[in-house]
Amino acid sequence: MKFVTFQKKDGSIRAGWIVNEQYVIDMHEASNGVLPKDLLSFIENHSFFMNFISSSQLNEKKVYPLKDVLLKAPLPNPKSFRDFYAFEEHVKTARENRGLEMIPEWYEIPVFYFSNHLAIKGPNEKIDRPENCQWLDYELEIACILGKEGKNIKAENAEDYIFGYCILNDWSARDLQRKEMKVGLGPAKGKDFSTSIGPYIITKDELEDYRIENGYDLTMTAKVNGVLLSEGNMKDLYYSFGEMIECASDGVTLYPGEIIGSGTVGSGCILELGTDVHPWLEPSDEIELEITALGKLVNMINSK
Amino acid sequence: MKFVTFQKKDGSIRAGWIVNEQYVIDMHEASNGVLPKDLLSFIENHSFFMNFISSSQLNEKKVYPLKDVLLKAPLPNPKSFRDFYAFEEHVKTARENRGLEMIPEWYEIPVFYFSNHLAIKGPNEKIDRPENCQWLDYELEIACILGKEGKNIKAENAEDYIFGYCILNDWSARDLQRKEMKVGLGPAKGKDFSTSIGPYIITKDELEDYRIENGYDLTMTAKVNGVLLSEGNMKDLYYSFGEMIECASDGVTLYPGEIIGSGTVGSGCILELGTDVHPWLEPSDEIELEITALGKLVNMINSK
Repeated sequence: MKFVTFQKKDGSIRAGWIVNEQYVIDMHEASNGVLPKDLLSFIENHSFFMNFISSSQLNEKKVYPLKDVLLKAPLPNPKSFRDFYAFEEHVKTARENRGLEMIPEWYEIPVFYFSNHLAIKGPNEKIDRPENCQWLDYELEIACILGKEGKNIKAENAEDYIFGYCILNDWSARDLQRKEMKVGLGPAKGKDFSTSIGPYIITKDELEDYRIENGYDLTMTAKVNGVLLSEGNMKDLYYSFGEMIECASDGVTLYPGEIIGSGTVGSGCILELGTDVHPWLEPSDEIELEITALGKLVNMINSK
Repeated sequence: MKFVTFQKKDGSIRAGWIVNEQYVIDMHEASNGVLPKDLLSFIENHSFFMNFISSSQLNEKKVYPLKDVLLKAPLPNPKSFRDFYAFEEHVKTARENRGLEMIPEWYEIPVFYFSNHLAIKGPNEKIDRPENCQWLDYELEIACILGKEGKNIKAENAEDYIFGYCILNDWSARDLQRKEMKVGLGPAKGKDFSTSIGPYIITKDELEDYRIENGYDLTMTAKVNGVLLSEGNMKDLYYSFGEMIECASDGVTLYPGEIIGSGTVGSGCILELGTDVHPWLEPSDEIELEITALGKLVNMINSK
């Protein structure tokens, strides 16, 4: 299923799913109030709700044409957002471009940072370039959404804890990031202003056709103003989502509704490509991320 | 006022405040249900609720002796946790101990990282040392709790956005932290397993007697197994909480219930003192942090 959060013409915001690529169902309305109004509540109790969906007669007449609703971030209020650094090519190239060698420790443990889970944006939402930023960049990533509470989860059991996947754009202010990272605490202001996800969260069962050993064969691309800049594949992950979950849950309880980002796929940002290939993003630029089966996530840089 | 979250003998967990240093009031019960059961809900609407408290006859007969309740983290479910690095001595000494020079950028901007706001512990709660950690450390910090939503807040107006203050212990696994920080994304597994706060959140009006220019004169100490190891003062902050809030809110909306940590006060951890002064923490060690007017926050390392 493809889960979404959407705003109706009357202004109300509801969770639901896409039917036949043309309609959305308001899950609360279609279930006469059994299913919740928001996707976080659904995910937190999704085993029960999924059973309800498959065993009940939902009122699927109450559908809304996709064109009549506004898709929001599918999970606008995640419990947290960890972003990993799991594609080798990205780490290597981004360092090479700054004259730095590869870090031996990168091959020993998957590493992540926490980012601002209270600044989640949705499809077609305009992104503000921070006032003091001149080097605005996108980052093409895939994210998984956790569906189950757990601690000390082993990679081989991690599948059970994944609710689904979506596209993630980890907007980055490279000038701010470069300065603050010299202090050693990692990125904060360079990343905290916006992270966009969407257009929907696809449940893992719908990805079976793409399954390969240790992940999925999903093409990932980014276009800026219609020009293809980035092209990669989820299969190039050095660390699987299972390994990322094992790392994140080591000594720490994970909860449904937390987001885990993969880190940028190889070639998936301007920092890696170089500004001779494309300049930093400017107001009115349109950035389209696409991943096989996960749809297209489009955002424009705000021109205000 | 000194706000707390506590568990009663019947197992229920409620928010309230301390009276005469000996009793707690269950705010929900004492207000016949007008005030909420949890402190986050109170903080999110505290202007209204504070007016209610000062204009209403609360049933203060329904008090509980402090000795009959279990104090929990005063805000067990903060919206987020940013930790700054705002005491110069800590940064300087911790770097000197590793043979590193001070970072010029540290003097230009306050820098922070996001940590795991879903791993908050309370007073007297036992702290698990991560399985693969041998170098466990405490960090003596003061934290402010935001009380009001805002964006692009100037330091001189930041006071309006602060609900109160509490003691914070940013438990650190130095061996894990040292390894992961080489990758450049800052601390994550080195800090994500536990952060303890408490015993209460004191509202800023109660700190007026300690006010000095740009902050408060509050002595901060840490004892391990009764031995005084760390001694500092909030007045030594290089960046004020106003400046930290200005930084955090630059281009980003802050919400009530977010926690902002000061970073470690000078001498406020074993990393700084050196293991010749005190070895890394071991199971059964008791760590007591104390700050003038903010009480004592005691935790023991779990011996299981």
